Amino acid sequence: MELNHTHDASRRSWLDSANAAGCDFPLQNLPLCIFRRQGSAEAWRGGVAIGDQIVDLAALHGSGCLRDLAAQAAHAAVAPTLNALMELGPGAWQALRHGLFALLAATSPDAPHARRTLVPQAAAEFAVPVRIGDYTDFYTSLDHAVNCSRQLGLEVTPNFDWLPVAYHGRVSSIGVSGQQVFRPSGQYRLDADGVPAYGPCQRLDYELEVGAVIGTGNERGRPIPLANAQQHIFGLCLLNDWSARDIQAWEMQPLGPFLAKNFATTLSPWLVTLEALLPYRTTWTRAPGRPQPLDYLRAEDNAATGAFDIRLEVSLLSARQLAQGLQPRTLSQTSFRHQYWTLGQMIAHHTSGGCNLQPGDLLGSGTISGPTRGEAGALIELTASGTQPADIGHGEQRGFLEDGDTVVFRGWCEREGFVRIGFGVNHGTVLPAPVPD
Amino acid sequence: MELNHTHDASRRSWLDSANAAGCDFPLQNLPLCIFRRQGSAEAWRGGVAIGDQIVDLAALHGSGCLRDLAAQAAHAAVAPTLNALMELGPGAWQALRHGLFALLAATSPDAPHARRTLVPQAAAEFAVPVRIGDYTDFYTSLDHAVNCSRQLGLEVTPNFDWLPVAYHGRVSSIGVSGQQVFRPSGQYRLDADGVPAYGPCQRLDYELEVGAVIGTGNERGRPIPLANAQQHIFGLCLLNDWSARDIQAWEMQPLGPFLAKNFATTLSPWLVTLEALLPYRTTWTRAPGRPQPLDYLRAEDNAATGAFDIRLEVSLLSARQLAQGLQPRTLSQTSFRHQYWTLGQMIAHHTSGGCNLQPGDLLGSGTISGPTRGEAGALIELTASGTQPADIGHGEQRGFLEDGDTVVFRGWCEREGFVRIGFGVNHGTVLPAPVPD
Repeated sequence: MELNHTHDASRRSWLDSANAAGCDFPLQNLPLCIFRRQGSAEAWRGGVAIGDQIVDLAALHGSGCLRDLAAQAAHAAVAPTLNALMELGPGAWQALRHGLFALLAATSPDAPHARRTLVPQAAAEFAVPVRIGDYTDFYTSLDHAVNCSRQLGLEVTPNFDWLPVAYHGRVSSIGVSGQQVFRPSGQYRLDADGVPAYGPCQRLDYELEVGAVIGTGNERGRPIPLANAQQHIFGLCLLNDWSARDIQAWEMQPLGPFLAKNFATTLSPWLVTLEALLPYRTTWTRAPGRPQPLDYLRAEDNAATGAFDIRLEVSLLSARQLAQGLQPRTLSQTSFRHQYWTLGQMIAHHTSGGCNLQPGDLLGSGTISGPTRGEAGALIELTASGTQPADIGHGEQRGFLEDGDTVVFRGWCEREGFVRIGFGVNHGTVLPAPVPD
Repeated sequence: MELNHTHDASRRSWLDSANAAGCDFPLQNLPLCIFRRQGSAEAWRGGVAIGDQIVDLAALHGSGCLRDLAAQAAHAAVAPTLNALMELGPGAWQALRHGLFALLAATSPDAPHARRTLVPQAAAEFAVPVRIGDYTDFYTSLDHAVNCSRQLGLEVTPNFDWLPVAYHGRVSSIGVSGQQVFRPSGQYRLDADGVPAYGPCQRLDYELEVGAVIGTGNERGRPIPLANAQQHIFGLCLLNDWSARDIQAWEMQPLGPFLAKNFATTLSPWLVTLEALLPYRTTWTRAPGRPQPLDYLRAEDNAATGAFDIRLEVSLLSARQLAQGLQPRTLSQTSFRHQYWTLGQMIAHHTSGGCNLQPGDLLGSGTISGPTRGEAGALIELTASGTQPADIGHGEQRGFLEDGDTVVFRGWCEREGFVRIGFGVNHGTVLPAPVPD
């Protein structure tokens, strides 16, 4: 895939809100979602963000404004998930993007038809946009690995340098932005040698991640080479891998995290396509002193390994702040460019043993942290396991999350010569641990 | 659920093969599958085993022999998965079982109608019987934990005594008995401090497990108490958790096994219902010197924690033995009764933090090993990591699996006063690592 007219910064939409400075959804973005009008019994269906509106793909398909493969792609998106669209493959995804670009551009003769398909984002509710078959969560930030290992008094494991560490996560508890997350209960030890207790988690955390949705898969036994890996990605979103640190510390040996993670995972509603992200690719490099990867994780062109500069931001709003209408205080800012392993390397490794990916599979990047404290993607790092509480503004501090806290992630890309594009918002709120029946 | 007339050992079927000694599928069993005639383009649909035949639930539903809830249940099973049947709940599952029992019993007036719905098992092919949402693999055999830890020079982790350790597994690569399993390639270290290599797995293993399919789930945030846990199980099968030990040893710190497991998992085609297994429940006890579990994992009635005496057997047939028509040599025999944690405790723990189970979710018990070497459920234990090769008969030995090997699991239950019931066969064959494109 190459840069093309849909990345041209001089192009504008006939919809004013799409041209506003700082807008997440200009003409050059066009991310997809599954939506319906809030509180309605309408069918869930595909939509595309433009400015503060959603292009209703069901209505658009009915209007006849799209032709050929673009029309076929829009038709496939008239469904409660985007899986059928994904199965049509990258050609169809691009045809839909280019068709929508033409239709929403200031020069479009079909603007009046397209305008009639718009639904205000503020009037919509969203669903998880894909039927997820398997969810894999990686661990690809060296800064996160170093920070977490330090909290546990351990060294980063030697395999970190050689492979993108990963584990399978829970699909059933994945929700969309706005998810209400019950504080999990579980076993933990207050005393390192003592008998464990069972009770509500005392060290509830978020993890700032990028999620990648697989658009086309591979056959079992047929690995995807790194050179082809990015073609298999449909789009990216923001992912909150809620984590119960006390439960995790006690349960995760020897088989990894389980109940510490599987109570909830929250996705932002919009899938930003790989094509929209092309201008923000970055060259992947291995830090000095670190080994070069084995052949199957190495590309001839480091610009093609699947590294992206996505700016990320975490903020937090307490229940009191929310009730008072206060603005959240930013806790961290970092970038996806810091990752030690790229999305392409994750896919090449995931399939290297013959594992089959399927359309709709979700990959989490693992917590994204940068080299400084202000770039920490989780509270365990930001607050040194709660020992150095973070200022969340308006006179409040946090070691770990409290009931009623709303965690807000934002992500965007910007680069000189290109229009800024954004991921929208991923927010989720902590509810008290349920009282047993 | 209580013992009832469907467990009565004196009852016989009008189908002779169901009454034969040693038959896995007498009238008292009635396990379910998804099948079609081998090599046909027929629709996949539900079936029930009786003797050497399958009752075709599509044909039976058309015959009108079943009434009310049993008919509704059979109708739901006329589908490519059993999920719709499962969603009808335990009342419908029991109605179907009791309706089929009456129809297949020697006394049935409808025998001629039912006979016309039979398809020989030998003429059928099978599919994974459920659409699996999430697959969780446990680690609940203390003998397995001790054996494996010894091979790695480690102690069993202290949490083993307190909770059923588990991790999420891969759904996309789950297949049904007969699965062809490509030898995975991956990273491993030949030298403990050296640079890893990438290549075909040198230590390929099986793991003998029981699989439990969840029939009804729970809401997120609403744990299933131990007392109710077994009501959520639709049925059990035999599960082979193929494992690449060299890849596993290198990758599994800190987040657990990933590529070492996700290349393939094989299920036997038949789901043996919990009702059929009732006579084989065993009383769960905690070994002397081991702590009693926390309250949420403890039942007032230890007979109700979900422990079952299921006899299990592993055998292995090399490609040469298969070509010569030789019988496989039994490698191990053990029982599910040895598990340290029961199925009920697994479900209570899995949901204790608020994780939601859904109809069709699969739980693996983890490798089932008993206290002696002849009861080892994996080669890593049986052969002490390959250092003491096992005799597989006919002049051959195995440390780990070789290309062309067929691994065969069998399971059955027997108890004085009851008819023996079986699980059928779970077999899978190792194919050479694919040559990269």
